[in-house]
Amino acid sequence: MWLKTRLKGQQLRKRAIEMIKISQRAEALEFSPIRKLMPMAVQAKAKGIKVYHLNIGQPDIESPKVFLKKVREFNQKVIAYEKSDGTEALKNSLVRYYQRLNLNINQEDMVVTTGGSEALWMAFFILFSKGDECLTLDPTYTSYLTFSALGGVKLKAVPTYLEEDFQLPTIDKIKKSVTKKTKAIIITNPSNPTGSVYPKEMLKDLVDFCVKRGIFIIADETYREFVYEGKAVSLLSFKKASQVVLLADSLSKRYSLCGARIGVLVSKNKSIIKAALKMAQARLATASIEQYAASFLHQVPKEYFENVRREYKKRRDTLMKGLGQINGVKFNSPDGAFYLIAELPVKNAEKFCQFLLEKFEDRRETIMLAPAEGFYVTPETGKNQVRIAYVLNQKDLQRACWLLKKGLEAYQRAE
Amino acid sequence: MWLKTRLKGQQLRKRAIEMIKISQRAEALEFSPIRKLMPMAVQAKAKGIKVYHLNIGQPDIESPKVFLKKVREFNQKVIAYEKSDGTEALKNSLVRYYQRLNLNINQEDMVVTTGGSEALWMAFFILFSKGDECLTLDPTYTSYLTFSALGGVKLKAVPTYLEEDFQLPTIDKIKKSVTKKTKAIIITNPSNPTGSVYPKEMLKDLVDFCVKRGIFIIADETYREFVYEGKAVSLLSFKKASQVVLLADSLSKRYSLCGARIGVLVSKNKSIIKAALKMAQARLATASIEQYAASFLHQVPKEYFENVRREYKKRRDTLMKGLGQINGVKFNSPDGAFYLIAELPVKNAEKFCQFLLEKFEDRRETIMLAPAEGFYVTPETGKNQVRIAYVLNQKDLQRACWLLKKGLEAYQRAE
Repeated sequence: MWLKTRLKGQQLRKRAIEMIKISQRAEALEFSPIRKLMPMAVQAKAKGIKVYHLNIGQPDIESPKVFLKKVREFNQKVIAYEKSDGTEALKNSLVRYYQRLNLNINQEDMVVTTGGSEALWMAFFILFSKGDECLTLDPTYTSYLTFSALGGVKLKAVPTYLEEDFQLPTIDKIKKSVTKKTKAIIITNPSNPTGSVYPKEMLKDLVDFCVKRGIFIIADETYREFVYEGKAVSLLSFKKASQVVLLADSLSKRYSLCGARIGVLVSKNKSIIKAALKMAQARLATASIEQYAASFLHQVPKEYFENVRREYKKRRDTLMKGLGQINGVKFNSPDGAFYLIAELPVKNAEKFCQFLLEKFEDRRETIMLAPAEGFYVTPETGKNQVRIAYVLNQKDLQRACWLLKKGLEAYQRAE
Repeated sequence: MWLKTRLKGQQLRKRAIEMIKISQRAEALEFSPIRKLMPMAVQAKAKGIKVYHLNIGQPDIESPKVFLKKVREFNQKVIAYEKSDGTEALKNSLVRYYQRLNLNINQEDMVVTTGGSEALWMAFFILFSKGDECLTLDPTYTSYLTFSALGGVKLKAVPTYLEEDFQLPTIDKIKKSVTKKTKAIIITNPSNPTGSVYPKEMLKDLVDFCVKRGIFIIADETYREFVYEGKAVSLLSFKKASQVVLLADSLSKRYSLCGARIGVLVSKNKSIIKAALKMAQARLATASIEQYAASFLHQVPKEYFENVRREYKKRRDTLMKGLGQINGVKFNSPDGAFYLIAELPVKNAEKFCQFLLEKFEDRRETIMLAPAEGFYVTPETGKNQVRIAYVLNQKDLQRACWLLKKGLEAYQRAE
C-alpha cells in the first residue's frame, strides 16, 4: 500500500514535469546560422583539421593599441557599476567620433549598450507593440529574427536580389509592404549579410517617405567605416529624419573590438532615449573596464581606418577573383562591410556546409561557411546560398577559395 | 501659392512626427527606484555636498586581486568574440565553485550571461508566453518589474511583512495566488530588497508544491555568500527540483565585481538551456576580458568570503544599532544580503529622499536612500519605507544614521 502510494506519487511528479513546458516564443527561436554548425567545426578541429572560418564576422585586424594599453593600465581596486547609460568619458569620446563625421550628436542623445546587439533588442521593445510590423530587406541580419520574435513583432521582408547586387529597393517597391501596422523599417548600411552600400539619393527618398508616413527607421550602421567605393551616408545626417531615426552603433567592427561588447543607441527623439534609459537601468550597466578603455578611442588616428579599409578592399578583390574561378558560383559585388552572398551549384547549401566540416578535407584543411537560408525572413529562400565573411588575410582567402572549389567537386562526386 | 504649399508640407510633416509614438510597453516602464533620484545626487555633489550612498548595492569591498591581476595580464592582440554560451575556462571555474557548495552543475547546464540581469531577462522570455503569470514576493527586486513588463508577463505579488521580517509565506498563502496561468515563481534568496534568508524546510515545501503543480522556480541567488545567521540553501540542492529550477547567478556581489557584468544562467532542464543558447547567439557574446579574468576566480580562497561576511555582519549590526536610536523608525532584522527595509515616520518616503538631496545638509553632508515603493508590485504599498544598502564602512554608516536622524528632524520641521 505504502509502495503503491509512493509509485503513484512518482508518476504524478513525472507527469507534472512533462507537463511543464517552456514558452512557445522561446521554443520557436532558431539557432544562429553563423554559429549553428560550430559543434561540427569543433569536432573537425579535434580530429586535427584546420578550419578556415569564413562563417563569422570576426576580423583578424589588431584592436587599437591605445585600447589594449588602457586595459592594462586599469587600476581601480573595485570594479564598480557605471551609470546605466554609460560613462561621461565614453560618451564624450563618442561625441568626438561623430563630430568627425559631421554628425551633431550629444551626450544626451545616447545610451551606451552592451554591443550593438543590445541597442537592437532595445529598439524592438521601444518602438513596437506586440503585433506591430517591422520592415526589413531580405536577406537580413539574422539577430533581427530573434529580437522580433521575442518582441512579438512581425518581421516583413522586402526582397533584394543577388543579380541587382542586393540594392535598396525603390520607395514604390517598399510601399507595397507598408500597412497600417508598419511601425518601422530596419536599414543595415553597409549591409550584413550582403555588403551592399546604399546611395545617398535613395536614402533621402526613404527618409522623405518615412517622415511623411510616420515610420521609424532603425539604422544599423555597424559597418560605416568599411566602404570601398564611395562613402557610407548615415541616416542621422538627414536633419528632417531626427525624430524618426534610432541608430544602433557598435565599436565591434570599427575597432576590431567584437569581444569588448560596447555599442551605443543614439537618437534625437527624447521618448526613445528615455525608454532606453529605463531598460538600461533594469540591466544595471555595461562593463566598466571596456568603457574605460573605449573612452580613449577618439585618439585612434584616421590612418587606422584607412589602413583597415585598404586591407579589406584587397581581401574583397582576392575573394571575388577566387570565387570567379569556380564553376557555377555566382556572387554579388559588395561595396562595403566584409561579407558577400554566393550562390553555389548545390541544392542545399547547409548540407554542403556540413559536408565541408564533416566529410571533406584537403591536406588536413577545410572551410566553414554560413548557410544563407537563416538570413532570409521569407521561408525556403536562399537555400543554395552562403554568406562569406572575408575576414582572413589574402593568402588564407586564396587557400579558402581553393578549398571551396575542391569541396564542391568532392560534394558533387559524393551526391 | 508656393509658400502655402511649403507651409502645408511642413505642417503635415510636423503632424506625422507627432503621430509616431514609441510603444505602450516602453512608455509604461518605470525608472529604477535605486537610480531615479541620481540626478539630484549629482546636483548636490556639484554644490560641494558629500553624499553617502545607501541607495545602491555597490560594495566598497576590493575585488579579488587575482581578477585585477589577470585583467592587467590580458595580452590578446584582437579582442575577439567568445562563444555565445561562455568560455570553457570560465564555465570550468564556475563548475569548481559550485562543487564547493556540493552542487552538481556541469558545463552543459550553463549559459554565461552579461550579469545576473541578463539571466533574469532571458528567464522571462524562456518560461513565459504573453499573458502568463509569474509569482513573486512583495517587496521584490525592481528589475523583475521591467523584465516582466517587456515580456508581457503578469507579475503577481504574495505579500510579506516587515513585522514578520519579510519571511517566505507558507504554501497555503502562496497557493491562494496560483491560477492556471501561473507559470513560475521567483525566489530571491537571500532577498534583495529585504535581506531575508529562507529556511531549508520552507524551501523544501515550496519545491514539493512547484514540482507537484508543474510550476517553474526562478532562483535568484546572487547574495548566496552573504548570510550572517545560518547558511543559504540553493534551490538547485533539491534533486527533485532539477527540471523546474532556473538559477540566475552573478559574480557581481560575490566578488565585488558589479562592473564586470558576468553572470550565469544555470538549469538542469535541457529545453531551458537550449532556448537560452539561442537567445545568447542573437546577442553574440559576453565580454572577453572579464570572462578571461573571471575564469581564475575559483582560486579565491574561502577566507575572502569569510572576511567579507564578517565585515558585512558588523555593518549590519552597526546600521541596526544606529537606526534603533532614531525615534519612529521601524526596520526588519536581515539575515543576509546587505539591505534592509526601514519604515520612516513620514508619509511619503520618496519626497523625504528628495528633501535629503535637495534641501538638507549637515556639515556639508547628506545621504541618498532608495524609496521602497518602487520595489512593490502592489500599487500604493511601502510609501513610507526605504531600502537601505549597508555597503559603507562602519564609521560612514554611523555618520549616515546620524544624518538620517537629523534629516528626519529637519523634514518634520519643514513640513
